[in-house]
Amino acid sequence: MHRCSMYDELIIVRNFNVLRYYTQCIFRLNNNNPHIIMKCSIPKGTRDFLPLEMARRNYIFETIRNVFKMFAFEPIETPSIENLSTLMGKYGEEGDKLLFKILNSGDFMKDVDFSQDYHKVVPHICERGLRYDLTVPFARFVVQHRDDLVLPFRRYQLQPVWRADRPQKGRYREFYQCDADMIGSESLLNELELVQMIDAVFSQLNVGVTLKINNRKILAGIAELVGAPNLLIDITVAIDKLDKIGLDAVKAELAERGLTQPQIELLNPIFELNGSPADKLNQLEKLFEGIEVGQKGVSEMRELFGYIQSVQPSCSVELDLTLARGLNYYTGAIFEVKANNVSIGSICGGGRYDNLTGIFGMPNVSGVGISFGADRIYDVLTELNGFPEGLSQSARVLFINFGEAEQAYVLKCAAQFRANGIATLVYPDATKMKKQMDFANRKNIPFVLFVGESEITNHTVTIKNMLTGEQQTLPLLDAIAMVK
Amino acid sequence: MHRCSMYDELIIVRNFNVLRYYTQCIFRLNNNNPHIIMKCSIPKGTRDFLPLEMARRNYIFETIRNVFKMFAFEPIETPSIENLSTLMGKYGEEGDKLLFKILNSGDFMKDVDFSQDYHKVVPHICERGLRYDLTVPFARFVVQHRDDLVLPFRRYQLQPVWRADRPQKGRYREFYQCDADMIGSESLLNELELVQMIDAVFSQLNVGVTLKINNRKILAGIAELVGAPNLLIDITVAIDKLDKIGLDAVKAELAERGLTQPQIELLNPIFELNGSPADKLNQLEKLFEGIEVGQKGVSEMRELFGYIQSVQPSCSVELDLTLARGLNYYTGAIFEVKANNVSIGSICGGGRYDNLTGIFGMPNVSGVGISFGADRIYDVLTELNGFPEGLSQSARVLFINFGEAEQAYVLKCAAQFRANGIATLVYPDATKMKKQMDFANRKNIPFVLFVGESEITNHTVTIKNMLTGEQQTLPLLDAIAMVK
Repeated sequence: MHRCSMYDELIIVRNFNVLRYYTQCIFRLNNNNPHIIMKCSIPKGTRDFLPLEMARRNYIFETIRNVFKMFAFEPIETPSIENLSTLMGKYGEEGDKLLFKILNSGDFMKDVDFSQDYHKVVPHICERGLRYDLTVPFARFVVQHRDDLVLPFRRYQLQPVWRADRPQKGRYREFYQCDADMIGSESLLNELELVQMIDAVFSQLNVGVTLKINNRKILAGIAELVGAPNLLIDITVAIDKLDKIGLDAVKAELAERGLTQPQIELLNPIFELNGSPADKLNQLEKLFEGIEVGQKGVSEMRELFGYIQSVQPSCSVELDLTLARGLNYYTGAIFEVKANNVSIGSICGGGRYDNLTGIFGMPNVSGVGISFGADRIYDVLTELNGFPEGLSQSARVLFINFGEAEQAYVLKCAAQFRANGIATLVYPDATKMKKQMDFANRKNIPFVLFVGESEITNHTVTIKNMLTGEQQTLPLLDAIAMVK
Repeated sequence: MHRCSMYDELIIVRNFNVLRYYTQCIFRLNNNNPHIIMKCSIPKGTRDFLPLEMARRNYIFETIRNVFKMFAFEPIETPSIENLSTLMGKYGEEGDKLLFKILNSGDFMKDVDFSQDYHKVVPHICERGLRYDLTVPFARFVVQHRDDLVLPFRRYQLQPVWRADRPQKGRYREFYQCDADMIGSESLLNELELVQMIDAVFSQLNVGVTLKINNRKILAGIAELVGAPNLLIDITVAIDKLDKIGLDAVKAELAERGLTQPQIELLNPIFELNGSPADKLNQLEKLFEGIEVGQKGVSEMRELFGYIQSVQPSCSVELDLTLARGLNYYTGAIFEVKANNVSIGSICGGGRYDNLTGIFGMPNVSGVGISFGADRIYDVLTELNGFPEGLSQSARVLFINFGEAEQAYVLKCAAQFRANGIATLVYPDATKMKKQMDFANRKNIPFVLFVGESEITNHTVTIKNMLTGEQQTLPLLDAIAMVK
């Protein structure tokens, strides 16, 4: 029903005189025949996924999805295309530039004044764009369906997003996000469950990770401590670089960003914090005497780390005051996950936001959420050689095709294998045996089945294990049990 | 990691003076608070899917995907965004208009001559577009990855496609296609397997369907029979309307489309064909004396219907010469599936094409495929009330939250439920019991769990069946076994 004419213009491709229309394609001559195969390509920053990659990606998605389900998150989907009025202005000026914008349909151009700056032209020719993340569409979704949602509400969403970013290693223009958010409850048990989910996903994937946790309120407390609450972002951005550039360089940057020398000295106890999360929180509590927001942050983290201790996650969980991601919108806990033995940046992140739907004028919707970066997790598992064997098996058994005489029996057998949940292939053509066996080898099909006159008479099949070379003749049901 | 600042512009929304920027939004005053909730919306022809719809859609997708897997089809995915050079000219002039085109990035407009006709402007401002179907991207995929594919190759692909069509009931601008194609073999066993797959999908979904089969070569034979091979499309388009408009009107249309009265009379035996598929094929064989293409069509259909008889599908399979879908590209068998008791048009279709990749200059890749229309199948199941119960269950059990004293034990119990594959919710706040029970009822959670002092002491939980009202106190493992 969804297929449309794709051969209307076939004649054009075959007509060498009009090949010039395909100026963006590179042609190469195929010596075996007179046809010219076009060099097909896809847009920069996008990817095709072949069966093996699909199997590996689905392994990651299924692991994440299953953990989301166990924690009773419910799936939703939103359209790929949103109104630009929903998307624009939500990701900062830089984000607006990275939105893929869709040209309006029809002959709308004649009324547009193209002599203006192109920024002013765009809104007249594009009303819709591709979603940039899953968070703003979720906020829009919550506002739009607020009468249908029972709070507290937990949703998960695994869908692609698009960004007109400059493509580079590990950064694509189309990629999947795997988000889980819980809204309508301020309880720190929600944060705990996110920690448990992170732990479950990476345990199941066999990836050793470190989860770093911080709290926006502690960072605000630090800014108050030095008497520069307006420099909160500057201070945390500088502190965030401690690992990379060292203490002296951080202090230099703090001075550059407007802190006085005495203010910088006030930060020394922060740089000298040490011990377990509980120890650090005790030291912070003393420093934050009289600083309400800092005390609130310490008490939240104390409660959360208390919960964490009681559930004993298998990954290591750290309190890391240099963690400064998402400061524009996170208001409480901040999470970041890094793989222990692969240097690739964060593979999961999230945090608490007090005002998800404020951008659409609906106040008081607090939430907390995380986002798994499936593409980076894929890279980590590749580097660790961590994908299970046999993920991409297309067919588990192949029936060799000897021709018409055996066909009815083979079809009956194949149907029984399939009814037992076994992915089954009947070689479609009665070609040479060697070609069919080659096919089984190249496709890594583990069992090959032969059916001849005696098998038909005795209701058996002859089955060959392609790995061991072992071959035996068995009743049909025994063969099914053997490969199942 | 994929979250970007969404609150940068929060201040704008809150500042009533600049609300005029959101001219496309309708605002309404919320009497309970001074905030203004924007009327959020999504583009025409697109949809949000809430958890219940998601569960139902996934039920359809999973059924289809599982059948594809049993027949050893392998998954692939292609990018949503393709180069317009790949897409344009493949769907006819009408299709080109329905492509969603993506505006190039950056300030590229200054060099464009906007005084031209807009058709000439578009290629200068848009180089990429959203895919229109999964067939052309698959053809592009086969050409691009031809060195990595082992033929015969079977792929399935479940992804959304986009068309700037006028939205109407059952027709969307973003919708999923579920395609399975097998390439590199001309054996009619492939066609048979598609028939078996159609039968399996609709049997598993419990939808009674009729599968209609035709063959392009038979239609070509008919056109030759009346001496008007050039009018093949006209003849079949007219015959296609037999059911709707009746024989006289069809004959009038045939005359209008250029057939002479004697030619129309030659079609009478075609209109009078009757009996089983085998009977019809015998009658056709006689009519097609000396018409090679027609004879070939008859022999192909005879072989296919022979196979079909040997596997005895549970759906009814008809030879229907009025079936004329996809004539622009199908070269052999043509399939169409209709639900027996719901009038909604076709819910699955497909056919044999001799030259999938010819559009990209790569010849001799024959294939056959089908596409399931998930959206219409959804509508059919809705009308038949055919979705299984309990699909959308978010949580199977809810732990009531009584406060801190029980928390550690509750968290331990919840972890064990989850480890046993049971979707488990701990109510995040220690609010009033009534509110928590209300929540369980509104969310249709079937079991509610209570943990107090005595449960902790005895390592038990008290479990309430929300349907029957029955309540009992059980050891933890027994409770898990009960709800599993």
